[in-house]
Formats: sequence, structure tokens, C-alpha cells
Amino acid sequence: MSVEEALKTLFEAVKPAPLGVEEVPLLEALGRVLAEDVASPLDIPPFDRAAMDGYAVRAEDVEGADEWNPITLKVVGSVEAGDEANIWVGRGEAVEVATGAAMPMGADSVVKVEYILREGDKVKVLRAVPRGAHVYPTGSDIPLGEVVLHEGTPLGPAEIGVLASLGLPKVRVYKAPDVAVISVGNELVMPGNPLPHGKVYDVNSYSIAGAVARLGCRPKVLGVYPDDPAAIRRVIAEACRNFDVVITSGGTSAGRGDYVYRVLGELGEVLVHGLKIKPGKPTVIAIVNGKPVIGLPGYPLSAMMAFELICRPLLEAYSGLKRKEGRVIEARLASRVIPEKGRVNLIPVCLRVKKEGLLAYPLRVKSGAIEALLLADAFLETSENEQYVERGEVRKLRLLKALEDLPDITGIGSHCMALEIVLGHLRKLGYKTRYIAKGSTAAFTSVRDGVANFGGTHLYDPASKEYNVSFMEIMGVRDKAVLVKGYMREQGFIVRPGNPLEIRSFLDIVEKRARFINRTKGSGTRALIDELLKKVAKEIGDTVDHLEGLIPGFNVEVKTHTAVAAAVKNGRADVGVGIRAAAAIYGLDFVPIGWERYDFLVEKESLELPVVKDFIAYLKSEDFKRLVEERLPGYKVPSDVGAVLS
Amino acid sequence: MSVEEALKTLFEAVKPAPLGVEEVPLLEALGRVLAEDVASPLDIPPFDRAAMDGYAVRAEDVEGADEWNPITLKVVGSVEAGDEANIWVGRGEAVEVATGAAMPMGADSVVKVEYILREGDKVKVLRAVPRGAHVYPTGSDIPLGEVVLHEGTPLGPAEIGVLASLGLPKVRVYKAPDVAVISVGNELVMPGNPLPHGKVYDVNSYSIAGAVARLGCRPKVLGVYPDDPAAIRRVIAEACRNFDVVITSGGTSAGRGDYVYRVLGELGEVLVHGLKIKPGKPTVIAIVNGKPVIGLPGYPLSAMMAFELICRPLLEAYSGLKRKEGRVIEARLASRVIPEKGRVNLIPVCLRVKKEGLLAYPLRVKSGAIEALLLADAFLETSENEQYVERGEVRKLRLLKALEDLPDITGIGSHCMALEIVLGHLRKLGYKTRYIAKGSTAAFTSVRDGVANFGGTHLYDPASKEYNVSFMEIMGVRDKAVLVKGYMREQGFIVRPGNPLEIRSFLDIVEKRARFINRTKGSGTRALIDELLKKVAKEIGDTVDHLEGLIPGFNVEVKTHTAVAAAVKNGRADVGVGIRAAAAIYGLDFVPIGWERYDFLVEKESLELPVVKDFIAYLKSEDFKRLVEERLPGYKVPSDVGAVLS
Repeated sequence: MSVEEALKTLFEAVKPAPLGVEEVPLLEALGRVLAEDVASPLDIPPFDRAAMDGYAVRAEDVEGADEWNPITLKVVGSVEAGDEANIWVGRGEAVEVATGAAMPMGADSVVKVEYILREGDKVKVLRAVPRGAHVYPTGSDIPLGEVVLHEGTPLGPAEIGVLASLGLPKVRVYKAPDVAVISVGNELVMPGNPLPHGKVYDVNSYSIAGAVARLGCRPKVLGVYPDDPAAIRRVIAEACRNFDVVITSGGTSAGRGDYVYRVLGELGEVLVHGLKIKPGKPTVIAIVNGKPVIGLPGYPLSAMMAFELICRPLLEAYSGLKRKEGRVIEARLASRVIPEKGRVNLIPVCLRVKKEGLLAYPLRVKSGAIEALLLADAFLETSENEQYVERGEVRKLRLLKALEDLPDITGIGSHCMALEIVLGHLRKLGYKTRYIAKGSTAAFTSVRDGVANFGGTHLYDPASKEYNVSFMEIMGVRDKAVLVKGYMREQGFIVRPGNPLEIRSFLDIVEKRARFINRTKGSGTRALIDELLKKVAKEIGDTVDHLEGLIPGFNVEVKTHTAVAAAVKNGRADVGVGIRAAAAIYGLDFVPIGWERYDFLVEKESLELPVVKDFIAYLKSEDFKRLVEERLPGYKVPSDVGAVLS
Repeated sequence: MSVEEALKTLFEAVKPAPLGVEEVPLLEALGRVLAEDVASPLDIPPFDRAAMDGYAVRAEDVEGADEWNPITLKVVGSVEAGDEANIWVGRGEAVEVATGAAMPMGADSVVKVEYILREGDKVKVLRAVPRGAHVYPTGSDIPLGEVVLHEGTPLGPAEIGVLASLGLPKVRVYKAPDVAVISVGNELVMPGNPLPHGKVYDVNSYSIAGAVARLGCRPKVLGVYPDDPAAIRRVIAEACRNFDVVITSGGTSAGRGDYVYRVLGELGEVLVHGLKIKPGKPTVIAIVNGKPVIGLPGYPLSAMMAFELICRPLLEAYSGLKRKEGRVIEARLASRVIPEKGRVNLIPVCLRVKKEGLLAYPLRVKSGAIEALLLADAFLETSENEQYVERGEVRKLRLLKALEDLPDITGIGSHCMALEIVLGHLRKLGYKTRYIAKGSTAAFTSVRDGVANFGGTHLYDPASKEYNVSFMEIMGVRDKAVLVKGYMREQGFIVRPGNPLEIRSFLDIVEKRARFINRTKGSGTRALIDELLKKVAKEIGDTVDHLEGLIPGFNVEVKTHTAVAAAVKNGRADVGVGIRAAAAIYGLDFVPIGWERYDFLVEKESLELPVVKDFIAYLKSEDFKRLVEERLPGYKVPSDVGAVLS
């Protein structure tokens, strides 16, 4: 079933409508939804109001007045803002008025103070005014009886202020829906408890409760339930008695026994079982005891995206909110997307603010990855039979995060510990940073595609015997980017303390069948590993392919130097290749291979951004050099760091 | 002083930084700001995890397997997600695994269930797999020790979920700043109290408290204080002892005695007195007892805009938020803006979502109008010496409201009570509507400029003796809009019950010097009034100008029929021109002048929008005709309502 059909079926079945009305003090009404049309109980302004400092007069008395023919009036009083103004202005008379003051009776206009000469209890009026000049008539802003705010309006600061202007200390708002949040899965443990082997911490209770609260609803986390029909039945039945809406996650996919679906079929009526979306297919929608139960998929990002599509409109309807679209923005796709056919694909993206508008960078992350939750700012929905979404196409996206929290600088490229120091400095300056460790190659493609402002790279070119420079040409970024000189890093084998397997070279690894922890393809370190392996193959007259097969763990890839060190530290591997600083942090031994240069590819367009200027200025600072060489063994910062190389 | 200089001075003086750290349960951390870098205390996944349902094998055991040469393995167990997986997979063995299960020891890869034939305790493997296939290695999502979230991150649902994935039940966040909110002005009364003549209800305490709360800070409304230095001194001194930041509004302009400025100078140090912005000039910034005190202007919208420029960055800095820009969006200007020179102009706009992006419609509203607060979605800052901002220019704007709450349909034009019924119907269908009553002429200009989807109009052309149609040509909208037929309305004189002044014609009004309440220029009713006056002038051989001068109140303009009726009801005027239905609602008498046609100008581009289709469909419905003729005397709905006239 499509999302539209599913929502239609659900809405027809439960007819979601506000769940009641409550009166709350105005100051507590922020974020609530107005439950009735509010007509103004008074005129605003409630009296004819002086719009300027000056003198209230009868316009007919000053007809023809100018600097050469001033007209003299008798001042019979003065009215400040807030005064009752029970003075009568007769023929030939005037009353001093302040901005915001009520007009004294009899007067119909205000002469600005600039056109008045005061002399004792007389004024000379130097300019005639049309009748009504500088008077803000009663009710001309909001007339008595006018409907000022309509039922269904979410109350922000401005609306709260408008209600205050009407003199209303309280306001009738819709009751916020009570929402039960349940996680299902034998593998789940609530945060704060020990984690037995084979289990993971529950994410969805928290992210879903947060999303529910963001909509102004009241979430209640009921906890984690095992894949046990009896337990699931008990908690859902109970939840459907005490809450307005029940949201579960996990336990809905066929391979997991589909317990939630089965239980819902027993307890009530299943309306939807399976959606034509990817991810999110196992979504279940049911009615139990007249209450809607939404069973979301178990993977955190999938659950969040399905929440946006199904739970948001449902909860908005129960809240009395009228929103057709949710949080939708438009952005240009940074790269082509080839969706799986026959269903709507939900493609998570991260966003970057560019001069020409928002750019959406489709995330290539594993389903179920927590990283995906961290990076996804929004998602794209393809249509059911869309063949591809072209790079550059402008599409509607649903937001998962607040636009105002987008980073000021986005880097994509190789992981580096000295770069962490630079980024930490930028954050201290007040910039929001985002760096995605995807390897050196991604620095070139991402800056080329306009996705990233910069990227770190340490790619060696055996032909030129140089780092990074020749890749400017090879990767086609010469027009779009410059290469900024970075620093030297010492690469080597990261091994357990004392180097028990006595690994001195890659040949040792092959011969000793040492359990290896590899880096992701496209990273500079992986290029180094592949280079070393090629040398060994040549030395011993074997093929690279065969050697790769001989090394246990060669297929296991991680993204950072620290992850390599962590794997060795935790005994998951005997050896990996990485920088000395990573080995040092984990108290591991390090067998040097050589020095490499780590540079920064910087988008030309971004060179003018204050954050990028601050970035390069900091690279060149003494402070940076000192901190790096103090904290990070195996790093050398050259004197011309920050220079443009190419 | 410019806003930038003022902020710099303020930040140098108070050095705003987070005010402390507190540990809160994860579920209560939504919207709070992370007070420390959070490094992962575990690997995610915490074990090598099966990414598919299938069988865990040693890749070397199934080398070369295909459908014609299946390899048979012995099944030695099964692991579900959440199981401890303490099974050893030896040579020639396999273990059944579910998605999410921990890999059993010895196995390095998963063969998907599709490539398996199970036969008792044996499986035939139909496909070879590379080592590591469908295994999600330990720490490959987030390695132990990796900094996952940085200090200063605002915690949304996704971040809360990420922290849960790390097993953290609590999180250290920055203490939310406590902010005192004070309103100053003799004319102010707190909502809920009676309103003496000359006073108005305080708006700013409420809108500012709302804006403070939206930033995650804790506002406390201290109430309304008169323009009395002693009282102001007492409350500000007290507030500076008990709160982190103090925000006042009002009492800062020279004409009002500038009490807040004077008091701040006595209590502490005034850093800024007067900003080069319009509105917002009288803004005062001071330090008292080490605490910043911001004195905002008194007009509600001015206060909100100055809040965005000054208070938002200050409060964000105290909250630990790193935001360079606040809530900034880009939009195209719908009409040219000519700013006042020599200072930054803050131009409030309302926004409309169009196919090509956001369109910003500069609001021409009176300073201090509550209506402005209601309509302003965002504001534009001109630069100090900008001559004009051209129509069509794309500019950065600061948001005052949530983008997701923009209306689905915007109408600008003449006010009409039957139109209220149509809009009410659309809201029942779930659309957000906005209608700005600016008169018939504005319908043409607004639809022409792409600002409005539609507008109501009742403009009479004496030449063609027709309503509205000829204005399609005159106003140059033929290419951009169609005219949709509306209904007939009876216009007449609205007078007190019993018509005590015996007004039968406009001549009566002139002769009897009846106090008139006029409508705004550009409205269809005003056009009718001007037409009637012209006739009278001809009849009695006088000039229109002279007659206008003779009628008291002719210069007092209101925007709606109901406002005219309200003015007569409340005795502010003896007579006005309006529709019969408005007179009826207020229990007033009505002297018919004649019938007019009220039509809808609809933007062609908008005809395809569901909301506009629903609009026209409802116009044509029996339901609409019945409701209008039942509820609104003096309305006739013709059988061809909703037809395209031109």
C-alpha cells in the first residue's frame, strides 16, 4: 500500500480530531494549538490614538497655517500616553499630546511638534493638517468583533503577543495527545543498563519520544519488550486503554516473526501491513480499542522517516494542527540517485547552504547505522516508478532537523587527528562544523560536486612521487578548488604492546596470517596498504588477489585511524595500518612505514567564507603548530603550512 | 551605533558564556544544549553483526559454490538477534543467523537465506561469498572513543537517539539562562485586568517571553511598570540580582522621558544608546551588576525584530549554542522597497511559497499595529546606504515564524463575510488560510505581483457599467489571472437603530453633518462612496473636496464592513457605508443603496493547486449557497457562481 492510501485508510478509520479543549494561562500556551476562533473583544486601538508627539487640534482651526501665517491656539492641557484624556478641545484650542496618548475630545488631528512654537500657554501652529492627521482611529488596527486568530493556529511568540493585546490572560487550546512509545526486540536494552553480548541499546524509544514531543504531544516511553507475543500483547492492550496513540518500533519484519503484526491482528484490526516504501516496508497500522497503533520499522533512521510520513500527520490531526505537508523544504540534488523501482524510496540526505540555495547530498550509509541518524538532515521521496533523480534537480525534501542548526562548514575526506584540533578551534570561535570521514578520494569528489567546503587528503601518486597535487588534474577539480598545504604524518603498523607477532613489514602479515583490520576503499591509508601489498606480491611472485585472501580480516573495513587502533586494542585484529598518534592514544606499539603529507582541498568559492578564512589562519598559527606537536606524536607541521600548493 | 558594533561591544563587556552544567535524564534533554564532547563509550555495533537473515559460514568453506556445485555444510546452531552467540563455527559448519544477530565465533561471512537449501541439520550453499559478506563489523558504525556529538550541539530527536545508542541514560547540558522580562509604560495594563480609557494591553511581556522560551531559555514575566524612575530602578536592580539576562521594552524613546536609559545609567553602565536601525532606534544596552540589560523599543513588532538582532545572539551565547545567523532564509522580493537612508531598515514581510521558491511581500503596516505582528513572517534588513531593494531581488531574511506554518492559500483584497464562510470551509478541510483585507484594488495588484493566490473584488466601472471585468484590462492582469464569478451583495448606509438622523441619501449626510466613518482608499466600498459623493456634488453644484471637508470623520478610514458597523454601534460615528450583513450582526439599521457584484480574481498559476480547486468547488456547492443565504442577509448567490467570467 502507498503512504497516501495508508494515511487515507487510517484517517477514515480513526477520524483523528482534537481530543478535547483546555484553558491555559497565556504564558503557558506557547506551542499549543488554538481551539477556537478568537474574535477581538475590543477595538485596537481602543481609542483614537495620537501617532506622533505634538498638539491635538481641530483641523479646521489651523486651515491655511504656514510659517508666514502661523495660527495661534490656546493650550488647554496635556495628555501623556496612558492618561484618561478627559479634556475638551474647543474652537481655537489645542492640547499637547504624546505618541500613544488618547486624543482629547473635540480634537480630530495632531500637528507634529516640529511645526509648533510654544509660547507660555499659547502655541503658534506653523502648518495646516488634513483632518485625521497623525491620528490612529479607534479600531483601525483591529476592530471589535474581528476574528483575529483562527481555530487550529499554532501559538508562537507573535500569536501569544496578539492574544495579550486583546487583554486575554487565558486561552483555550486543544489537549495535547498522549502517546505511548514502545520498542520491541530481544536484542534491545534500555540505556543505563549493562549490555550483554549480542545486544544493543534501544534508540527508537528516545528518538521517537523526542519527535513526538517536538510536535507538542506528550510522549511516554513504556520501555523495551522482547519478541514475545504475550508480553507485546499485554503492553499494547494496556497502552491502548491509557493513551491516545500508540507507536511501536521493531518486531514488524517477517524475518523477526512479525510479532507486532500478529498481536495487533488479535487485539484489533490491522489496516495496513506493509508499505510501498524503502526503507519502511514493514510498517504496520492498526486500530485497537479505537486507538491507532503505528508499528514502525526497527532501524533508527527508517523509523524516523516513517514517523515523518505516518505519525506526524496523524499526531498533527489529533493536535488540531492544519498542516498539509509537514516540514518540507526544497533543495538541489548534489548527485544522481538511482532508486529501487516499484516503490517509493526514502533517500536520506545531508544539506549544505550554498549561495544558490540548499544543496542535498544523498547519504550512502548502511541501513541501521547510527551514523545515518547523525548525518541525515532531511530525506527525499522518489516516486514509485522513477528511474533516477538527476544531479541538479530541485526536489521537495522532508526535514529531519532544524535548518538553523546546519553546519557553517562541511568537510568530507580523510580522517585526521590534527584536523580535529582545527575543527575544535573553529567550534570555539562559534562555528558549527561537520566532518564526514569518508577517505581522501571523497575529498576530491565532494569538493568537485560542491557538497563540501573542504576535505583532507593524503593520496600518493607513484608516478609523480608526490602527494595530492597530481590528483587535482586526475580528479578534475582544478577549476573548482585549490590545494592548501597541510602537515606530515607518520604512518605505520599499529600492533599490540610489545609487538608479540613481531610484525616489521607487510610480508610478515601475509606470512604470519596476522588478523588484519583494513581501512575503507578510497582512503589514503587504504591506497598505502594496497601499494604495500602490491610490492609484497611482486617480491614473492604472487597475485594481489591471492594475498588478500590469505590475510584474515582483509575485507573488514573501518573508517578512521582510531577505529583501527581500537580494533587492535580490543583484540579483534592483530595489526592494522594507521598513524602513530592513533597508536599512542590506545597505548599500542607502532612500527613506522614512512611519512606522508596530509593536505586540504578547499573549494574556491568557499575561500571567501569567514569560517574558511579562520580555518586557514589557524593552520598558519603558532598555536596550532604547538598544540599538534605537543599532543600528537608522529606529526610535523612545516613552516609553509596553509600555503596554496596548486 | 550599528547592530554589529553594538553586539561586539556587548559581547566584549559581558563575555556571554554558558552559565553552568547540569545532568538531565536523556528524555528531558530535548531542546537542551550539550555541555561536553561525547565520545562513544563502546563500539557500535558492539559485536560483528549479521546484516541479513541467512547462515554464518567461513568464506573459505564455500569458495566456488554455485547452483550447479552446491557445497554442503553442517548446521551446528542458530542465533537470533539478541542471543549471546557462544557457538563455534568450525570448518565445514554453519550457523543460522537472523538480521541483527551477533556472528558466532569462527564464522566470517553470511550467506543470504535465498542461496541456501536447508535439509535437516545440513544446508546446501548455492553461492560463494567474499570474506566479510553481510557482516557489519564491530565498531564500523561508531568506533569506541570516537567523538560522536560535540559540545554546543542542540539536542533534537536524532541526537537524543544517538546518545541512547551509546547507552547513556543521562546527559550533561548547559543550564538554561533565566531571563527577566519587564514592560515599561504608563499606558500599559496586564491582560486580564480592566482597561481604563487611554490605556492598552501589554503585548511585549508575552511575545518576548515566548521568544525567550523558544530559544530554550527560562523567561519570567515581571509585569508592567509605569514611567516612574523609582519603580523602574527597583525592578531592574532586583532583576539583575536574580536573573542572568534582563529584557525590558518601552520607556526608551526620547519623547517618553527615556526613563529606562536614565535608570540604567544610574544603576550600571550604558554600552549602547540608540541603534542605526529603523525601527528599533531607541534600543538601549547596559550592564548592571555584571548582567546585560537590553531595553527594546515599545512597539510590538519593533521589539520582536530588535529581539532577533540583539537578544537572540546574546541568549544563544549564554545557552552555549553556536549559531552564526539565527533563523535565516532566502526569498525573492515581491515588490520594490525604498528604505530610509543612513540606517539599516528592518522591513517586515509576509512570505508565500511559490513553485520557484519563497516570495517575500513587504508589509505596509503602521508602526505599532498589532496587525503587523500577526502578518509578519520574517523581516529584511537593508544595508545602511542602500537606495532601494529591487523587486525580484533574492535576499536573506530573518524568520519571525515557523516556515511550516505558512498558509496554504493567501488572499489579498476586499473584505467579505461570505468569503469568511469559504475560508472557514477550507480550514475545515485542513488548509491554512490567510486573507488580508486591503480593498479591491489590492486584489489586482497582489495577484498581478504574484503575492496572492486570489483576491475578492467589487470594483464598479461607470464606463462599462459592469463590476470587476474591465479592470482585468485596466490593471494589466489578463495574462496572469482569471475572474471567477462570485455573488451579489446589498450595500447601504449603516445607521443606529431607528435611523435617528433620518439618513436616506448621501445628501442627508452632507446636510446634517452626520459623523461619518469611512473605508480605506482602494476598497470597492470607498469607490462607491466617492461615486455617491460625486453625484451629490453635481446635484448641489459644489466640489467634492469641499463636501469632504464638511463631513466630520471623512478622513477616518477602517478596513472592513464590520469595522464600519462597530464604529456606528459604539457611537464613534453616525453613519457609514457597508453591506447589510454587517449592519445585521450589530443590530443596526440599514438603508439600501443598491446591489453590487463581488467576484474573485484568481491567479492562473494557482488554479492547479488543490486548495484553489477546493475553493472554487465549494463556491459552486449547494452547501455554500444555503449557508450564505441563511446567515447573511443582503447576499444573493447566483446559479453560475464559480464560473470563469474573463
